[in-house]
Amino acid sequence: MPTADPLAADLAGVVGQQHLLVDPDLLAAYETDWTRRFSGRARLVVRPGSTAEVAEVVRRCARAGATVVPQGGNTGLVGGGVPRGGEVVLSLARIDGLDEVDGVSGQVTVGAGATLAAVQAHVRAAGWTVGIDLAARDTATVGGMVATNAGGLQVMRFGTMRARLAGLEAVLADGSVVSRLGGLDKDTTGYDLVGLLCGSEGTLGIVTRVRLRLAPLVPAGVTVLLGLESTEAAVGTLAELRRRGAPLVSAEWFQASAVALVRGHTGLPAPPCGTHPDHLLLDAADRHDPVEAMAAALDGLDGGDTAAVADDRAGREALWAYRERITESIGAAGIPHKLDVALRPDRFAAAVAALPAVVADAAPAARLVLFGHLGDGTVHVNVLGLAPDDTAVDEAVLRCVVAHDGTIGAEHGIGVAKAPWLHLYRSDEELRAMAAIKAALDPAGMLNPGVLLPAVRRPPPAPPR
Amino acid sequence: MPTADPLAADLAGVVGQQHLLVDPDLLAAYETDWTRRFSGRARLVVRPGSTAEVAEVVRRCARAGATVVPQGGNTGLVGGGVPRGGEVVLSLARIDGLDEVDGVSGQVTVGAGATLAAVQAHVRAAGWTVGIDLAARDTATVGGMVATNAGGLQVMRFGTMRARLAGLEAVLADGSVVSRLGGLDKDTTGYDLVGLLCGSEGTLGIVTRVRLRLAPLVPAGVTVLLGLESTEAAVGTLAELRRRGAPLVSAEWFQASAVALVRGHTGLPAPPCGTHPDHLLLDAADRHDPVEAMAAALDGLDGGDTAAVADDRAGREALWAYRERITESIGAAGIPHKLDVALRPDRFAAAVAALPAVVADAAPAARLVLFGHLGDGTVHVNVLGLAPDDTAVDEAVLRCVVAHDGTIGAEHGIGVAKAPWLHLYRSDEELRAMAAIKAALDPAGMLNPGVLLPAVRRPPPAPPR
Repeated sequence: MPTADPLAADLAGVVGQQHLLVDPDLLAAYETDWTRRFSGRARLVVRPGSTAEVAEVVRRCARAGATVVPQGGNTGLVGGGVPRGGEVVLSLARIDGLDEVDGVSGQVTVGAGATLAAVQAHVRAAGWTVGIDLAARDTATVGGMVATNAGGLQVMRFGTMRARLAGLEAVLADGSVVSRLGGLDKDTTGYDLVGLLCGSEGTLGIVTRVRLRLAPLVPAGVTVLLGLESTEAAVGTLAELRRRGAPLVSAEWFQASAVALVRGHTGLPAPPCGTHPDHLLLDAADRHDPVEAMAAALDGLDGGDTAAVADDRAGREALWAYRERITESIGAAGIPHKLDVALRPDRFAAAVAALPAVVADAAPAARLVLFGHLGDGTVHVNVLGLAPDDTAVDEAVLRCVVAHDGTIGAEHGIGVAKAPWLHLYRSDEELRAMAAIKAALDPAGMLNPGVLLPAVRRPPPAPPR
Repeated sequence: MPTADPLAADLAGVVGQQHLLVDPDLLAAYETDWTRRFSGRARLVVRPGSTAEVAEVVRRCARAGATVVPQGGNTGLVGGGVPRGGEVVLSLARIDGLDEVDGVSGQVTVGAGATLAAVQAHVRAAGWTVGIDLAARDTATVGGMVATNAGGLQVMRFGTMRARLAGLEAVLADGSVVSRLGGLDKDTTGYDLVGLLCGSEGTLGIVTRVRLRLAPLVPAGVTVLLGLESTEAAVGTLAELRRRGAPLVSAEWFQASAVALVRGHTGLPAPPCGTHPDHLLLDAADRHDPVEAMAAALDGLDGGDTAAVADDRAGREALWAYRERITESIGAAGIPHKLDVALRPDRFAAAVAALPAVVADAAPAARLVLFGHLGDGTVHVNVLGLAPDDTAVDEAVLRCVVAHDGTIGAEHGIGVAKAPWLHLYRSDEELRAMAAIKAALDPAGMLNPGVLLPAVRRPPPAPPR
């Protein structure tokens, strides 16, 4: 049946038959995202090997009236990288080259399909860090992280992906290539197309190559795990640590419920700081002695007397396990609804306190697990025990967050998961401006229809397969 | 004759008669920019006092078919903030309020018309720094600095204005207000309208309020002035200082020709490091002892043995005078052509070496003065002895920079000064994408026509005055 779709033959002429998938068994891996909550049938999967091939694929899809879903490592959590039904999936996985690290400018250019872990290892060998880290590092690709303006564990020190971007190359909906890989630290020559494409979730263009700003690797690091009696205390301790100039890289927050879930799933012992209602996991790095710096900074603060400290690799990993193994422990308990939201420091504790009742009202049997990046205000709201298409809790949580002046999307993007509620947080004026930009750069609505903004047309029906 | 223009009466109804200027003597201050090279007649000047008034002014101008030039402190250097002929000048000067510093999030919201110096003093009193500084600080407004994505003296430590933006409020061409002042550190909910408006030079919207990210003020600072025998040596010394983790805030570069010009104009003595072909002026700040840190970092480097060091206010200002007084010394010598360009570190010295011959070829009698922010690769190319409309040198310099992989616009913007050469540096694909975005958000071409991109229509003729 593969040849039943003339587009398949057409695209095979661009990328080679071996990089054009139509067999349903082969398509399956591209059709469902990490949450297992979002899934749809692909018309076909095409795996171009270069920017020029991406451009030609886009032009031929446009000619055929096909819609296109760009896909990186397929670690997305909002259904933004899998088909809704009948789209062409354009995988960037083969465009994964790593250019030599430019040690003079402290930058590197990599293919969009390179995994974060591959890029991390590549630049570490040259004495640099990407400044971005997240649990899906072995699978998540840099291109997808640009498309979603990914955040993760080190945003408080290094910013989100947009801040780490020195440039990119992308293919627009008309098949034209925008290439901004010159690597200049300063460049004000018109609209910031690089920043605009970052966070646009594949709806304005397909990122093919990325130039990253690096930071010098600071060898001396320390990890500290604190127990705290309340979320207010966690927020207060972190604010004071920052005021005192503690050389923080990460400040992760989780509650006792997450510790219980992790211990049940993994068999880990109780945390060395003791079990408390709230926990703060701090990573610090400095050219000066970070252990001494953190001890001084924690002096007299809430939770400071509980501090479990490690500055060797095994010890630090043991402390991080309580945080890093939360996601797999949730996954083992079921298919969660995942809502990543963010709050200002002065509203964080109140919103967190309000969420259990909000969830219980909407779904009395649901199980709520909260953790997040306190350093930048992100809360990962995980709700277990819901049907995949039961969105009552999603809406209730997002409304609660907005009522606390928070955002409905911190770092996962909007995708299809939150598109129905974007209006809760973005004004009509902003949505009109976004729709105008989308229409300007993709008038036919070809790229990732239905993600982020309403689709401007129905995708063509999938051919039989 | 003020009443001859019905739009004047209409707008006076919005802002009050006292904030509507039509008298040619009063308009003059708004019609010529800092360079004195760019000048044009204004139809009228309107000075709204709030975002709502800006929106209403824009709507009424649209209805009247008038074009609008937004203006801040009028310290622009590329003709982007003064009329070309017949536009309404919309001054943001009255929208200059300073909200209380938010010490928990480390942010502040200010009016677009607030001067940089006013904001600096305001946040310094609360223990914070804006992370942006430039010589025009007493006059330049924050809104204008957002519109041009301003850089200045501390970009190597804190980034350009786009990196300092936590949000903004702006009026679009249809009079709608986009307000993103929530101050969340992380927010991925659609296209980055804030970043897009930053650097758009008033062509996509009029910035009315700005939320800035602050950095904790580091009290201990030191200034070091070095003499170097070549530009290569200056680049090499700076690269090694960064590799060694020197806590640099600024790294300014200037040549002996600039020192001679400043000494001739100001009567300053020879620099304490001695006069050398190239000079590097370094500012460093650290919670640890920055004097010791800089001494250690400079050990064995080119120019290190010439170091003049000051860590008291008077001594630091004396060293900075050689850099800060360059612009006024140039201005005293004539009306310069100013071209701000930027280069990668590995191309910086070669481009600088090539420029004298390029200028001499195009204008044998011209005088070239070079200085800039080596920390981010910016070179301010100043050429004296040219007629205002003699653009042969401008083009030759920009072509030389592009041939060295540099950008034709580092921090002043494109304005009208460099619009004819934007195509040297931005591809047809990028220019088409920019034009599409402009047409999407300002279909009538009402905002700052002719700046950055070609005007899509002729402005209406100015009424008699």
